[in-house]
Amino acid sequence: MFREKQFLQLPGPTPVPPRVLRALSEPMINHRGPEFRELLEEVTAGLQWAFQTQNEVIIFPAAGTGGMEAAIVNFISPGEKVLAVSIGVFGNRFAEIAGRFGAVVEKMEFPWGEAANLDQVAERLAADRSGEIKAVLITHNETSTGVFNPIQDLRRKMGHHPALIIVDAVSSLGAIELKTDEWELDVVVVGAQKAFMLPPGLSMVSVSSRAWAAAQKCTNSRYYWDLGSARKYQEKGQTPYTPALPQLTGLRESLRMMKEEGLPRAHARHALMRDMTRRAMRALGLELLAADAAASASLTAVKAPEGVDANRIRRAARENYNVILAGGQQKLDGVIFRVGHLGWVQPLDIVATVAAIEMALLDCGVSVPLGAGVKEAQEVLRQALSGR
Amino acid sequence: MFREKQFLQLPGPTPVPPRVLRALSEPMINHRGPEFRELLEEVTAGLQWAFQTQNEVIIFPAAGTGGMEAAIVNFISPGEKVLAVSIGVFGNRFAEIAGRFGAVVEKMEFPWGEAANLDQVAERLAADRSGEIKAVLITHNETSTGVFNPIQDLRRKMGHHPALIIVDAVSSLGAIELKTDEWELDVVVVGAQKAFMLPPGLSMVSVSSRAWAAAQKCTNSRYYWDLGSARKYQEKGQTPYTPALPQLTGLRESLRMMKEEGLPRAHARHALMRDMTRRAMRALGLELLAADAAASASLTAVKAPEGVDANRIRRAARENYNVILAGGQQKLDGVIFRVGHLGWVQPLDIVATVAAIEMALLDCGVSVPLGAGVKEAQEVLRQALSGR
Repeated sequence: MFREKQFLQLPGPTPVPPRVLRALSEPMINHRGPEFRELLEEVTAGLQWAFQTQNEVIIFPAAGTGGMEAAIVNFISPGEKVLAVSIGVFGNRFAEIAGRFGAVVEKMEFPWGEAANLDQVAERLAADRSGEIKAVLITHNETSTGVFNPIQDLRRKMGHHPALIIVDAVSSLGAIELKTDEWELDVVVVGAQKAFMLPPGLSMVSVSSRAWAAAQKCTNSRYYWDLGSARKYQEKGQTPYTPALPQLTGLRESLRMMKEEGLPRAHARHALMRDMTRRAMRALGLELLAADAAASASLTAVKAPEGVDANRIRRAARENYNVILAGGQQKLDGVIFRVGHLGWVQPLDIVATVAAIEMALLDCGVSVPLGAGVKEAQEVLRQALSGR
Repeated sequence: MFREKQFLQLPGPTPVPPRVLRALSEPMINHRGPEFRELLEEVTAGLQWAFQTQNEVIIFPAAGTGGMEAAIVNFISPGEKVLAVSIGVFGNRFAEIAGRFGAVVEKMEFPWGEAANLDQVAERLAADRSGEIKAVLITHNETSTGVFNPIQDLRRKMGHHPALIIVDAVSSLGAIELKTDEWELDVVVVGAQKAFMLPPGLSMVSVSSRAWAAAQKCTNSRYYWDLGSARKYQEKGQTPYTPALPQLTGLRESLRMMKEEGLPRAHARHALMRDMTRRAMRALGLELLAADAAASASLTAVKAPEGVDANRIRRAARENYNVILAGGQQKLDGVIFRVGHLGWVQPLDIVATVAAIEMALLDCGVSVPLGAGVKEAQEVLRQALSGR
């Protein structure tokens, strides 16, 4: 199999464009010198554009999980209460991190495959008259189920409750609209290896002025994740410790590509690939985990046919057709497969992926009409083109 | 100036060989798939070779500072005492991290430019009859002063005291002999961007069985840095969260290069470049911060002539000759410049660097005999060649 022609249809790591791969292999520079300052200023301004914010955006040399840890230890002191809204594995992870660092975690769980009911969240906050809840932790796009939460309304629904809104946008920002300032989101965490088309190794965190004020009072232990220290260094064009240079030169290049496409077109492309995938899977008689209204533009979770292990389908797709699909996590392991359609992915990749899924199903003894899913995907694509 | 011909004489980031730069730009793979398992197994075995250990070595997607934080939060509970041996900025950083996470830090400081007196450390431990001190934190190579601590004798000197030895070997391992198992070092932290010839973005931590036992009892809060979780995932060829793939494929390549050279030859090369630098600087009438017996093979700290700002010399070297030297940190800012000679650096680079320093000194109005330092460096080099 041609390894470099693999269809990497994961919700991260996502395919990295050759332009960005080349930008990774620049020679090292002095991270305390003038060239680095220029690099940091360019990528920081670019991130503000992508986050749609005037807030500072801090970059950590870390996985997305590191940004999530930073979003806890800088704002929540041990003993303080957070309301953790969870619709899947990553919502649970956010709650778990908060708990590990001494937060009193009140979890609001919704069934896996559904979005959170934000009216219920608002009701809970309305009942918290003493303002005991210091922050709402919420996943924008839940990577384990392919569901997104409509957080654009959250601040409005919260009324005057002073809790910070802390958003895990690791797998959404860049693929799904997220307006940090307009929606008044205090802390937004993003990972590199998703819609930013970068290899893993960076986590980016935006911080509102309300959140900075909370950080000053926060007593949780922190050194590596100390946002205040990062902010101070950023003012002089540096970082508190050695930055991940390849991912930063890569980020400069990927931000240039993102600007060339523009956010509205990127969002439309992701939504189109979502619609292609969903219509195709349904044409094959497969059930989708998420309802249409909650369906993520980053990835689609598909239930394996009754009695078939989803991981067998994934293995056939990988071994026979060079298409990499993600599996289900925890209680969804073996039950679903996940089709990533975010980052450097184009509609025709989805057509090919659908074709591979059709054939992999047949290889697993599931009778499906070859080409039926492909035809649906093609129709959605052509309809989108005619509408332009 | 030819940017890609820059002499990057920093104690990190160090120059990255083109072979490794190319290895960074491999296409992404599934970090939960069989290809990743193979990659992780190869680099983990390679790290055990480089660390000279049978202990597990865990890789974090992080700067070296992250590995230092991991070396605290997994082993030291809040309220527990550590003895932090400091001979400079990074010794202080280790102590500071421990303090941030609630350790009772007893600091033993030695003058900047000198090695620690390990007999005094041993005396302090002998006086700790109740075993209150849970760990000794010690820097192997102090990057801020160019001094190394002779930690090979530490365990023997400690006698039966049960404290863990936790070593910051970020800028030593690969350049300076470090025998993890033979010297009975419990935790050893290394960074990618030094002797490993990689770009920053990885931190590697080895853990002895005594340290694992301490980790199980440690109550400090941790999620990202949780070594126990990393160990569990490593057994199945995975990591708890997304790994930094470019640095890992880079590490595979750089470990291959390190094996081609072999550790004894690498150590000899670094020692040779140290000797060349020191003899050359002295020939120019410059004073060295460290005495010969304590001098690091990774870098050399040089005092600027009386009345001359060291940063002016650095600027002239950069702007006129394309040579990047490091500055002094904190109280040494402006007082010293530091010549990195570790990682992918060869003796002739040092000859050129010495020549640039000579000219930069003249540019700053310091009268030095052009070529005097170069000649000394050449002689040291030729002597080493004749001795082979």
